[in-house]
Amino acid sequence: MLMTRHPIYSLEFFSGIPESILNSIAHESQLRTAIRNQQVITKGSLGDELFFLIRGRLQVVDVTEDGRELCIHIIHEGEYFGELAVIDGGTRSTSVVSIADAELLVLSRATALQLIYSHPILAERLMKKLAFLVRLSSQNRAMLSIQNPFQRICTVLTTLIRTLPSNLKVIELPPQQSLAGMTNCSRETVSRAIGQLLNTGIAEKDRKMLILREPERLQSIVKGKISIE
Amino acid sequence: MLMTRHPIYSLEFFSGIPESILNSIAHESQLRTAIRNQQVITKGSLGDELFFLIRGRLQVVDVTEDGRELCIHIIHEGEYFGELAVIDGGTRSTSVVSIADAELLVLSRATALQLIYSHPILAERLMKKLAFLVRLSSQNRAMLSIQNPFQRICTVLTTLIRTLPSNLKVIELPPQQSLAGMTNCSRETVSRAIGQLLNTGIAEKDRKMLILREPERLQSIVKGKISIE
Repeated sequence: MLMTRHPIYSLEFFSGIPESILNSIAHESQLRTAIRNQQVITKGSLGDELFFLIRGRLQVVDVTEDGRELCIHIIHEGEYFGELAVIDGGTRSTSVVSIADAELLVLSRATALQLIYSHPILAERLMKKLAFLVRLSSQNRAMLSIQNPFQRICTVLTTLIRTLPSNLKVIELPPQQSLAGMTNCSRETVSRAIGQLLNTGIAEKDRKMLILREPERLQSIVKGKISIE
Repeated sequence: MLMTRHPIYSLEFFSGIPESILNSIAHESQLRTAIRNQQVITKGSLGDELFFLIRGRLQVVDVTEDGRELCIHIIHEGEYFGELAVIDGGTRSTSVVSIADAELLVLSRATALQLIYSHPILAERLMKKLAFLVRLSSQNRAMLSIQNPFQRICTVLTTLIRTLPSNLKVIELPPQQSLAGMTNCSRETVSRAIGQLLNTGIAEKDRKMLILREPERLQSIVKGKISIE
């Protein structure tokens, strides 16, 4: 019989934690599945579980005061989420929805807290993640406070730039609907902005990828120095 | 001779930490002053110190990508700040400016980290603060994504409601310039919005205080159910 290793051992978050401890956490944890479009966490609900995404892809969604949905970010395999309510016992600050079929490992709040406070390395990792989230939302706030929608879109695109080994700068384009949600404008505006980047030769399109020909000009748009509207 | 107790002993953050440890931290810490309008932290700079505000009042200010200043929140006596760069070694995410003459206690990054990771109660407090900051900016994001400026202003006002022992709901009004910064609109719009709350009988003004006569109607504006423009 082939024994599959428990997924907890593959989680980056627990690296360095003794196997004996992981064994007992594995026993206390639950494995759950979610189908596509299932709500894993509902904003405003009471939550007392910490989640690890073993397989699949999830979307963090916020609902604005006036009822519109904003996609905040994507959760990838190996990442964890739900830590805010675990730390402070409050309600869920955002919703989480599965984009694809997903497999989750779930720890109770008590187990998670006991683990974190007895292993400084876990406390450190969690704090670094929280610090990252604060920075992310601070960038987000700065972006959303830009009045010009084209400039907001270009600002978000800038955060998605990757440099290939060939030194080429590329952007893997998220779905236009997601970009629209992130930048608080319509899908049409996103489509027009990307069209303008192509028309002006700042970028070229290769399937779902933007190849940046003039990254400096994109930066100038972000800084409000030039306009492409 | 009257010996003044070192201000570290009055800081809530350290409550429960043995006096012998506080003594040695007091020795390693620095006391600094800042005059009114002095920049205590500059966004984007490298920072390796954790600050505690002993006396005075500070303002956390963010600068948007297109160069405008947004007041994020106010730091009150006894609070600490600068923890992000201390945790992750990154640059300062926002600026901090003194509103009034201030006295600060400053810990080096090394001292602060060593202290936090060897005392789970401090790690817990710091995590709760970070969780609070994430929640705050998530609320902020939801607020800033509301298109109607009156609605944004009312949303921020809602977060400032206090209930007096007499059951009266009141709002201590921040300066209009601060409200304008927080809600990303002009001071004139803030002034007009508050004027409308008074004209429609939703609130009454008593010096710097708004007394809410119809808190439910304010909530309805926030939810976009009614408009007062």
